[in-house]
Amino acid sequence: MLVAKKIFELPVLTTLSGKTIGNVRIGWESYGTLNAERSNAILVCHFFSGTSHAAGKYQENDPLPGYWDAIIGPGKAIDTNKYFVFSSDTLVNVNANDPMVTTTGPASIDPATGKPYGMSFPLVTIGDFVRAQKALVDHLGIQKLHAVMGPSMGGLQTYEWAASYPDMMERIVPVIAAGAPGAWLIAWLNVWAAPIHLDPNWNGGDYYDRAAPLAGLAEAIKIIGLQANHFEWVDATYGANFARADLDPLAALDNKFAVEAAFEAAGAARAALSDANHLLYLVKANQAFIPGSGAGAKSASEGLKRIKAPALILHTPTDQVFPASWVKATAQALVDNGVRVESAEIVGPFGHLNGLYAIAPQGGQIADFLARPVAAGM
Amino acid sequence: MLVAKKIFELPVLTTLSGKTIGNVRIGWESYGTLNAERSNAILVCHFFSGTSHAAGKYQENDPLPGYWDAIIGPGKAIDTNKYFVFSSDTLVNVNANDPMVTTTGPASIDPATGKPYGMSFPLVTIGDFVRAQKALVDHLGIQKLHAVMGPSMGGLQTYEWAASYPDMMERIVPVIAAGAPGAWLIAWLNVWAAPIHLDPNWNGGDYYDRAAPLAGLAEAIKIIGLQANHFEWVDATYGANFARADLDPLAALDNKFAVEAAFEAAGAARAALSDANHLLYLVKANQAFIPGSGAGAKSASEGLKRIKAPALILHTPTDQVFPASWVKATAQALVDNGVRVESAEIVGPFGHLNGLYAIAPQGGQIADFLARPVAAGM
Repeated sequence: MLVAKKIFELPVLTTLSGKTIGNVRIGWESYGTLNAERSNAILVCHFFSGTSHAAGKYQENDPLPGYWDAIIGPGKAIDTNKYFVFSSDTLVNVNANDPMVTTTGPASIDPATGKPYGMSFPLVTIGDFVRAQKALVDHLGIQKLHAVMGPSMGGLQTYEWAASYPDMMERIVPVIAAGAPGAWLIAWLNVWAAPIHLDPNWNGGDYYDRAAPLAGLAEAIKIIGLQANHFEWVDATYGANFARADLDPLAALDNKFAVEAAFEAAGAARAALSDANHLLYLVKANQAFIPGSGAGAKSASEGLKRIKAPALILHTPTDQVFPASWVKATAQALVDNGVRVESAEIVGPFGHLNGLYAIAPQGGQIADFLARPVAAGM
Repeated sequence: MLVAKKIFELPVLTTLSGKTIGNVRIGWESYGTLNAERSNAILVCHFFSGTSHAAGKYQENDPLPGYWDAIIGPGKAIDTNKYFVFSSDTLVNVNANDPMVTTTGPASIDPATGKPYGMSFPLVTIGDFVRAQKALVDHLGIQKLHAVMGPSMGGLQTYEWAASYPDMMERIVPVIAAGAPGAWLIAWLNVWAAPIHLDPNWNGGDYYDRAAPLAGLAEAIKIIGLQANHFEWVDATYGANFARADLDPLAALDNKFAVEAAFEAAGAARAALSDANHLLYLVKANQAFIPGSGAGAKSASEGLKRIKAPALILHTPTDQVFPASWVKATAQALVDNGVRVESAEIVGPFGHLNGLYAIAPQGGQIADFLARPVAAGM
């Protein structure tokens, strides 16, 4: 399945905090065809370090397809012969320097000055991400989405959609995401941001005309990758191997184990396509997440009470980003509020990343949930 | 129980890698009285960010006693009316600037130059820590320890003792520690070290005549504290509270949630008494840990085969430093090697730190294990 990137432009976005952002541009892509009734649309929201590339390839020789390609495509669980599936890059997407990503954030040109916003870009929330997506949905003439879904931060956006626009979707599928981040994840998000603050090249966020804080950004991405993973896979993959067999880690402080070199290299590779300020803004948006903020909710419990759409909620037991017990607590809160909820566990060796890499076995359940008439009950 | 710090001096220590360190000084303290036969000594080894202050107070008005005071003292599980309990600061102890800690490492004066070693200090291992402790044990005239024990890195030292000097103790109690770090912990130790490398004040380890890299060091300690904890306690303690009620975290990038401010403050407080190079050396020692290295073992499985002492091995199910499955695998390896092993689970809300803060309920089992004649079987 070959896909093309499209760009959605919004002359002005008013944020939930009342700031305006001019010339908003976000990338998006779609799979399948919107039907005449515009009733077969499924919105897929992406995770923290992800993009709108949920499925397919841009070119035949791309090394990897989009992250949920296992379940999105013709004849797959989210069958693009039936559904019009689409996804958009969030505001302040971290992959700001990836040529296939279009986002608006601190690295974007401020139309008022002709220079990058830097730290003058307003703080935005998950509610603002969804507000921008809502403009795209309106632009497409879609009045009711068949479903909203997504993994991790994509699940947060799903909860925000369902709480802020409860009549705009028939069902939701939040995956490896809870209805609130919890103090512990707020603290880890702080850890993810800290290396950028330590990098002298960050320079208070003012680096667009000089060297970017790539060392701090690479370190941030490295930590995120490790936390999203699980020791079962990491141990089995790297063991106590040296990065270079001839360089014993005990012979010099700089000599590394294979696992150190691998995660550092992955962080550095991603950093080259990413923006440090965007990561800081993304951290803040996740820390401050309140579902239903777009409708004025001031707490997670208040926001969750606004949700009406039936939900299929997936967790994974070894998750160290959104622990399974948090996800289950969110599901229970929805049940207590009278929402019809179906839950399931994703099994795999990847920790949080099971929601991406081990999603395929859940395809049948997802397909059934998407096909079941909402009025018919669970 | 009031305790006094003592200092053990070793004119020269030859490391396992063949380097020599002159004028080695390590702090130590003891509780109870060594009997005439010198047969009632229990060595307690400290954790990564800990010190030899295992129990008691230095002064009546100390805010807190030593970390295992709940189980060490007169009439307690490790009864100092019966046992002579002692503990020493490791080499490259991270709390190098704590006036109650004496250690030898990069921050120490090199007798050859009259200046701090800095990065010219040789890399050392857990095996070297134990080699220095062994010199203290010899100095005390103890030929056989009643027990060796300790939590986390203290457990690593315990395994090293049992594998390198298998006839020098009657029993061991490794707590929340596995026989090898595993790739996943090697990678997290790398994360703990990284903020120091990012701090420009680190200056390649050469900072003893200028500003120390306290920001990086504080960040490192913050991460360690968070990883050693557990979301159950963190969430219950901090929730989504703001650090300052009048400063909404969404109003400015620098405004924080309470949990962020608390972990940052704890890291900064500890950093003021710590040394960044010592932390880097400690990271390396833990990453490269091989039990029995002092006797030439080249792998964990080889080293564990040298252990003969009966073991009481404690794990905790929510541990995100030494996962319970790792600890259980080490226990099983010892069983497979014919060692008599007793295992138990520590229950509590603190994650890895259950091995410190939730140890009290294990006191009865520890007391029984310490009192049981080794020849009598389990």
